[in-house]
Amino acid sequence: MMNLANLPERTIERLSEYRRTLLNCLAKGKTHIYSHELAGLHNITAVQVRRDLMLIGYSSMKKKGYDAQELIKVIGEILDHEIGLNVAVIGMGNLGRAITAYFNGKRPKLNIVAAFDVDPNKVDRVISGVNCYHMKELEKVVERNDISIAIISSPPETASQVAEQLVAVGIKGILNFTTIPLVVPDTVYLEEYDMITSMEKVAYFVKQAYAR
Amino acid sequence: MMNLANLPERTIERLSEYRRTLLNCLAKGKTHIYSHELAGLHNITAVQVRRDLMLIGYSSMKKKGYDAQELIKVIGEILDHEIGLNVAVIGMGNLGRAITAYFNGKRPKLNIVAAFDVDPNKVDRVISGVNCYHMKELEKVVERNDISIAIISSPPETASQVAEQLVAVGIKGILNFTTIPLVVPDTVYLEEYDMITSMEKVAYFVKQAYAR
Repeated sequence: MMNLANLPERTIERLSEYRRTLLNCLAKGKTHIYSHELAGLHNITAVQVRRDLMLIGYSSMKKKGYDAQELIKVIGEILDHEIGLNVAVIGMGNLGRAITAYFNGKRPKLNIVAAFDVDPNKVDRVISGVNCYHMKELEKVVERNDISIAIISSPPETASQVAEQLVAVGIKGILNFTTIPLVVPDTVYLEEYDMITSMEKVAYFVKQAYAR
Repeated sequence: MMNLANLPERTIERLSEYRRTLLNCLAKGKTHIYSHELAGLHNITAVQVRRDLMLIGYSSMKKKGYDAQELIKVIGEILDHEIGLNVAVIGMGNLGRAITAYFNGKRPKLNIVAAFDVDPNKVDRVISGVNCYHMKELEKVVERNDISIAIISSPPETASQVAEQLVAVGIKGILNFTTIPLVVPDTVYLEEYDMITSMEKVAYFVKQAYAR
């Protein structure tokens, strides 16, 4: 078994995706699933599925397939923080509101506990179920609520400055939804999430299909 | 030079990201950029940048670095469809509206030309600058507007059925924003875009940082 602290990023991504699929299976009353079924649902090979699960020390596929409930629990031990992690959303425009609504209640160990904006029409109101504070209260609110992760959904031109502020108040993980690539110190984990890139990938492969 | 029809998915992703960065550079009046600068902005190695650009037959870094304008043009020839591709958004809730507002005008060769919903309060209205139609008009509108790509941002429980309808009317590329993994025929390119996965990746690496 590999050192769990060193799992590859792609494996972490897939574990998260497997769990999502397993939760969907359970919701439909399906209690067991074969590696090849899980593979088919994710457009990868069964070997890849088994390798990922071996990395986390799980290899007990029975005749009926993997026990969904058990596997969800095992993946949760890898992915979830014991006491949960608190999250802030920076920028409550269309995108910030959509993200907040999308996440809320989806994962009990990841809670969006605060939102930030500079627009007086948003500050000091509850938006998508979360209190919205002024950016100047960032440090105070982050400390008080033990927030370690931030989602940046502010206007692109503010993204770099927002990231600097987040690092300064001790945020440990950033999910960047703006189109501006950010640079942060090595001690902060950064995930860039650019919708345009996904879109351009789809367009490229559609273009190839037409060219055939 | 590699066959351009067979570029790896990851290279396509990075080309899209390089272009985004180059556009930002130009906007700031920076006309040239070195491979190591581009690499630093994307948290990858300069060797990786040069390898990606070699794959598309571009290797002309001058003393001043790459010419941003020229490189944007070369990447555009790979990524963009000559006459542009038309896109539909299925589901105009918070997320659908955010996506539409986010994309509109960002890439001239990718146009969101129609939205679909079943909610009578949304159908036959202009939302985020796009006409919203009832799902039962899907086939007609897709044909009339030559739509080849669809974004699914409908409620998760409808995602599979929506995907089937999209395939049936001849959509060639799907970007899935719901939490439900989809299965489509090989002739359709599918990109799954689950925010929760990105979030769980950040949480995992933050957790590791705390454990150190």
